[in-house]
Amino acid sequence: MDEGATSVELDRAHVFHSWSAQGSLTPLAVAGGRGSEVWDHDGRRYLDLSSQLVNVNIGHCHPAVVAAIQEQAAVLPTVSPAHAALVRGRAAQAVLRHAPPGMAKVFFTNGGADANENAIRMARVHTGRDKVVSTYRSYHGNTGAAVVATGDWRRVPNEYARGHVHVFGPYPYRSEFWASTPQEEAERAVHHLERVIQAEGPESVAAILLETVPGTAGVLVPPPGYLAGVREVADRYGVLLVLDEVMAGFGRTGAWFALDHWGVRPDLVTFAKGVNSGYVPVGGVIVSEEVAATFEDRVFPGGLTYSGHPLAMASIVAAVEAMEQEGVVLNAARVGADVLGPGLARLAAEHPCVGEVRGLGVFWAVELVTDRATREPVGAGVMGRVRTGLLERGMLAFLVENRIHVVPPCVVTDAEVHRALEALDAVLTDIDATIDEETS
Amino acid sequence: MDEGATSVELDRAHVFHSWSAQGSLTPLAVAGGRGSEVWDHDGRRYLDLSSQLVNVNIGHCHPAVVAAIQEQAAVLPTVSPAHAALVRGRAAQAVLRHAPPGMAKVFFTNGGADANENAIRMARVHTGRDKVVSTYRSYHGNTGAAVVATGDWRRVPNEYARGHVHVFGPYPYRSEFWASTPQEEAERAVHHLERVIQAEGPESVAAILLETVPGTAGVLVPPPGYLAGVREVADRYGVLLVLDEVMAGFGRTGAWFALDHWGVRPDLVTFAKGVNSGYVPVGGVIVSEEVAATFEDRVFPGGLTYSGHPLAMASIVAAVEAMEQEGVVLNAARVGADVLGPGLARLAAEHPCVGEVRGLGVFWAVELVTDRATREPVGAGVMGRVRTGLLERGMLAFLVENRIHVVPPCVVTDAEVHRALEALDAVLTDIDATIDEETS
Ligand SMILES: Cc1ncc(COP(=O)(O)O)c(C=O)c1O
Ligand SMILES: Cc1ncc(COP(=O)(O)O)c(C=O)c1O
Repeated sequence: MDEGATSVELDRAHVFHSWSAQGSLTPLAVAGGRGSEVWDHDGRRYLDLSSQLVNVNIGHCHPAVVAAIQEQAAVLPTVSPAHAALVRGRAAQAVLRHAPPGMAKVFFTNGGADANENAIRMARVHTGRDKVVSTYRSYHGNTGAAVVATGDWRRVPNEYARGHVHVFGPYPYRSEFWASTPQEEAERAVHHLERVIQAEGPESVAAILLETVPGTAGVLVPPPGYLAGVREVADRYGVLLVLDEVMAGFGRTGAWFALDHWGVRPDLVTFAKGVNSGYVPVGGVIVSEEVAATFEDRVFPGGLTYSGHPLAMASIVAAVEAMEQEGVVLNAARVGADVLGPGLARLAAEHPCVGEVRGLGVFWAVELVTDRATREPVGAGVMGRVRTGLLERGMLAFLVENRIHVVPPCVVTDAEVHRALEALDAVLTDIDATIDEETS
Repeated sequence: MDEGATSVELDRAHVFHSWSAQGSLTPLAVAGGRGSEVWDHDGRRYLDLSSQLVNVNIGHCHPAVVAAIQEQAAVLPTVSPAHAALVRGRAAQAVLRHAPPGMAKVFFTNGGADANENAIRMARVHTGRDKVVSTYRSYHGNTGAAVVATGDWRRVPNEYARGHVHVFGPYPYRSEFWASTPQEEAERAVHHLERVIQAEGPESVAAILLETVPGTAGVLVPPPGYLAGVREVADRYGVLLVLDEVMAGFGRTGAWFALDHWGVRPDLVTFAKGVNSGYVPVGGVIVSEEVAATFEDRVFPGGLTYSGHPLAMASIVAAVEAMEQEGVVLNAARVGADVLGPGLARLAAEHPCVGEVRGLGVFWAVELVTDRATREPVGAGVMGRVRTGLLERGMLAFLVENRIHVVPPCVVTDAEVHRALEALDAVLTDIDATIDEETS
């Protein structure tokens, strides 16, 4: 049997998949990748508009990151977090080099979920309070506290943690606040957040946990004034502000951290994905001087076997240095502003099935609707066609509900973006023709 | 500045550590390792009786595992869990090759904590029940549900999850059941478990979650009959039995899984650490046919970005194959039965400060007491001397409360064990002389 068939057969027999009914899956067998492309076992190539799970910011198989992993593997693949490891200190430096002012330390974890778990833990111990306020349109990970902080449907079958409160965040295209401008949406969303904190009892609230730009929920770029307003509310009530930059951080928005766009000062920042493009599982919490001081003589009640894992650390050092040297973040900003953003805006103007396009850098969502006036989302049938149409045109995209998330690696070239825009144009033309008949 | 000093300085400045007050730490800078040894930046070598965090079962820098990581890094370091990857299917096969009968699939995670999170989730959805019963003497990880399933002190500042109930497990040396023989301890512990389940309401209990051999809690080898009794109780009430083999699995006890020693049939098994000796962060859940069937047409509500990460998968395939080819598990069994076990028993006989020695394979605990009659544990002062004494003799050990955990890699040689026994002999002689004066 050929390798592609073996790959799918073994997968179907023995691999249990995330967030799925196992019987319904038809996975694509990926054999390799380079830059913004991956290929299957027959050599069929795909432009990776998904960056896998929005993590391969530096592209596939970046030679410097691969080499760093290979070298560290030969020297010391693993070490207890209790010991010091030179590469771990250097990785902390690399992360802190791009962190906002006032940040002192890094606690490394294995991914985004446990980064949020530990940020929540720090906030609770630091404030001596219990509750965490997060938004309904969010995803923070699959572990006990992270999944209940999550607002989307994934929370509902997993609500076994206490101390979580949810609010609506700003979403001008589908306002929960009867707002008619982005400014009004921002003001009202801040007001709503403050009212919930007042009603919960501010002295019971440890943290506000927000994705700086909610990602899986739809690349919901916060309207001007929102994050500054949230910071004010947090300060007013002695609540910590935790920004989840797991998906938005490390170049995705055309800045090192998405928070840089708004100059907001968080108390804790969580990261994963782009920090090393996911070449080795890793995540972490960036800790402010103030929160770090709390744990100087007080035991931090959290930890994990692979905190600061040498292979992961080597990949962080190499990925951050390569991004610095090769201008990867600048490329994401430029491509977003000059090619991808304008290109998607053009598609929105031309295709009636597009309700809204929003994003920045290489972080975009295209919302498909059956009717621009009612903004009614297209259904699963339409999205299935989008998937097939894009795959047939050699494009891997990240589809969520009624949206195409266009999230290529930060190293994507202008030529690749033009190819993607052409494919999208063709697929959207097909959808335009069908949305009148098919609305489910 | 030399590299060792830089390593410690960067660590102290920027690295936030697990389970500690940050101001109290004096980490050892580890520069490299091979087999059962690690060394610092000055070339000082240590015999690694800790296996780091009891994970480096195959020893440091095993060439076949290093090579597999290096090769996979060049081909495809990362891929979305939604796609199929040949190496992931092969890793699932490698794990299932050693799993007990009736196991069908593997769900891969990043470590032990999220393995337990997902096992708990599967048990809850499968049974439609809520509560998880685990023991006070246990550690299951630092995330929301795993840390509340944990019984030891680490649970207490983190109790933000519901649905967790704790019982006492068997511990003949310090019985909670007024038992005078191991058999009696086993019977009474099973009775106590059953009474708690009855009192909680069996129809509310989803799972019994146990470390097959509780590790950090003191290498509490279950007395004969205990696990069979637990299985009977689980069957009687329709409760799933989840065995946490994160520390005990993959050779540690001289068997592939610790459960093999007792022939117990679990519904779910969690693993991490020894599966790939921690060369890449990974863990997972082994899922029985019955539980897997539940999720054929029902959505499994859990997942993570790095589930089935290619680098981790390549390291699992290589580590399991090397363990098979090199008889690593057999070595652990033989060393335990012929050298380490008898050697520690001799030390126990000769040193009044040793209250009990227990274990199997390369998984041992030496309990230090101030008085053999009262079994009063020695205090932190004594354990500080043990640490210093062992370090001075070139031994890295894993110390917990009043215990020396002697947990070298499964590849440890007879000569290395003899060196360790000599060092322990010297340190215990020193402690014998002081326990009369110092009891704190
Ligand atoms: C914003 C955000 N936070 C947290 C997570 C969880 O990260 P992980 O899957 O590594 O646990 C994700 C994953 O998509 C995410 O997008
Ligand atoms: C028995 C057991 N379960 C779970 C864990 C948690 O594993 P991790 O630290 O990889 O999250 C550990 C860690 O020591 C363990 O010993």
